[in-house]
Amino acid sequence: MQTDLSKQLGVEAPIFAFTHCRDVVVEVSRAGGIGVLGAVGFSVEQLREELDWIDAHIGDHIYGVDTAIPQKYEGMDSSTPEELVALIESAIPQRHREFAEGLLSNAGVPAWPDANDPISLSFSIQQAQALVDEALTRPKCRMIVNALGTPPAEIIEQVHEAGRLIGALAGRIKHGLAHKEAGLDFVVCQGSEGGGHAGEVTSMVLWPQMVDAVAPLPVLAAGGIANGRQMLAAMSMGVQGVWMGSRWLISTEAQAEPGQRESYKAATSEDTVRSRSFTGKTARMLKNEWTEAWERDDTPDPLPMPMQGYLTFDALRRTHRYASVGDCQKVAFNPVGQVVGQMNDEQSCRDIMFQLLTEYADALEQVNTLSLQE
Amino acid sequence: MQTDLSKQLGVEAPIFAFTHCRDVVVEVSRAGGIGVLGAVGFSVEQLREELDWIDAHIGDHIYGVDTAIPQKYEGMDSSTPEELVALIESAIPQRHREFAEGLLSNAGVPAWPDANDPISLSFSIQQAQALVDEALTRPKCRMIVNALGTPPAEIIEQVHEAGRLIGALAGRIKHGLAHKEAGLDFVVCQGSEGGGHAGEVTSMVLWPQMVDAVAPLPVLAAGGIANGRQMLAAMSMGVQGVWMGSRWLISTEAQAEPGQRESYKAATSEDTVRSRSFTGKTARMLKNEWTEAWERDDTPDPLPMPMQGYLTFDALRRTHRYASVGDCQKVAFNPVGQVVGQMNDEQSCRDIMFQLLTEYADALEQVNTLSLQE
Repeated sequence: MQTDLSKQLGVEAPIFAFTHCRDVVVEVSRAGGIGVLGAVGFSVEQLREELDWIDAHIGDHIYGVDTAIPQKYEGMDSSTPEELVALIESAIPQRHREFAEGLLSNAGVPAWPDANDPISLSFSIQQAQALVDEALTRPKCRMIVNALGTPPAEIIEQVHEAGRLIGALAGRIKHGLAHKEAGLDFVVCQGSEGGGHAGEVTSMVLWPQMVDAVAPLPVLAAGGIANGRQMLAAMSMGVQGVWMGSRWLISTEAQAEPGQRESYKAATSEDTVRSRSFTGKTARMLKNEWTEAWERDDTPDPLPMPMQGYLTFDALRRTHRYASVGDCQKVAFNPVGQVVGQMNDEQSCRDIMFQLLTEYADALEQVNTLSLQE
Repeated sequence: MQTDLSKQLGVEAPIFAFTHCRDVVVEVSRAGGIGVLGAVGFSVEQLREELDWIDAHIGDHIYGVDTAIPQKYEGMDSSTPEELVALIESAIPQRHREFAEGLLSNAGVPAWPDANDPISLSFSIQQAQALVDEALTRPKCRMIVNALGTPPAEIIEQVHEAGRLIGALAGRIKHGLAHKEAGLDFVVCQGSEGGGHAGEVTSMVLWPQMVDAVAPLPVLAAGGIANGRQMLAAMSMGVQGVWMGSRWLISTEAQAEPGQRESYKAATSEDTVRSRSFTGKTARMLKNEWTEAWERDDTPDPLPMPMQGYLTFDALRRTHRYASVGDCQKVAFNPVGQVVGQMNDEQSCRDIMFQLLTEYADALEQVNTLSLQE
């Protein structure tokens, strides 16, 4: 099964796997899709290490890199990362720091071992530029995706000059139109059921409107896809591929602490919430005591991005590292879409890919049968 | 195009049109689908009048009737409607009454002409029973649908003995399972993007899970369908038909005040909200000053059902009748799904049906073409 975009990329199936795990990138690409490494929060050294491994294991297949190239933060003009950090630090009230730390301590989450480890400013333009530079040195990295708005014109030009494709996420029609205007090659359109940052309009309603709005630019469908029937549903609405993130989180190749993996396996589709409590922007994640604590009337409100993300950087790394310790899952950051309710069994990425394509073909045969009936 | 359910009903296409307008019922059924008259809030006399008209105009086609057959209200045991009204009246604080009236007056919505007109208790079991009795006297009424939970066993038995089908809405898997357990003939499964009462899980995620959960019971897909691509997407996930409500609201045959019609035409998919401000249960509608006013910290919270619906009965009838007067649209009840953003042109129901089926066929051809490509 092919679309113009999958043919352009030279992959067998238009299935894009967003993941933070290099093993998943490799396995999906080797199974005919295209793995996209989510590199937000990586240092250049980390990215280099991951891409070295991927390049060594992926064979002749290709992959992509997803990062977060921010617009300027309002009222935060600064020429260096250090200045930006100082601005952010000064904008975080002490009450917020104490509240966040209290939630972690109450849940018995151990402190980070080295208090001198720096807080990485994931969402700076300098950081993103360095990651893009590194990715573009890799011939098998065929696409860059921006998770956070339209990338700056210089980066679009740089990616194009390197002969790669560049796209970006969009949860609203106006963002898709801005991407098209800026000259991007495709739009990843995510409905509100998706994990991580997403808007309010659901995939069923958003995808066909986005396809029409940005045509002939290709649209990838994100949010709500974890099986072959959902993939066919997406393709029915005119997209050129599917972008899946959640489904790989419990694949056998995914690197996750058992505590987090069990949280995903146990959750139903009703157990997620859209919350600003981790990044400062509304993102979908598993509900827990942390997300509920930031909602209450008698507690601090989440700060805007980038302050809230800076404030919760410590919560993120600690709940990730100590995911299976004490009551850590009560306050852990577990971003995932509503399809989490469909994720109960651990399977290899190859099996997931095979099931997707088999169920897709079966579902297509089924709807074709309906049409033949009078 | 046919499914087992559409064949059982003897209609040409499995398109179910939920509407409060008798003309829409007739036109959709005559065009090969099946019109379903939403009778919640109707008196028996009103329903009789509407069904007389439908029977006289629908020819040999069939239709359905949708009503709200409630479970008992917790802590509200009462043997007569009068007793229930007295209980409800006593549970509505004066502050709520004044707040609601203030919003209406500020928007310049005229008072209801006859203060002696009774407030209809739409959601009583007695009222629902009377509507079902009336509907079952009509040979062309082939199905009863309950908008509010699993109907009582006596009503299910009554409908079956009359040789008709009975189904019910479900926005959560557990509700679908309860419907199956009770012996219903089908489940109308509505995702969170749908208009009116809906749960939190979106159609993309909810439909395939419901299909699997209640199999082999037929599922109708509701929420997010207004064009043929969306219909194909739904059918791809294994449902036996599509249930559409919003799309008909601006059809030429729909009876609506120009003010309300214009509100629907002007709205984008981002202009709806899930709010408890009218019925007391979360329902999707157009955002306006009314829905926002009930959200604020310094205003009363919406009461539970049935109190809030009783309290807002006057707001409903006044904003419906005077939809085009003054600033009425700022406080009007305009229930609709997120597909409202796709509804810009007024078309006849027959044209809408034709477009649905044509676009469905085109989209199916398109996905079949993708599969042939290597």
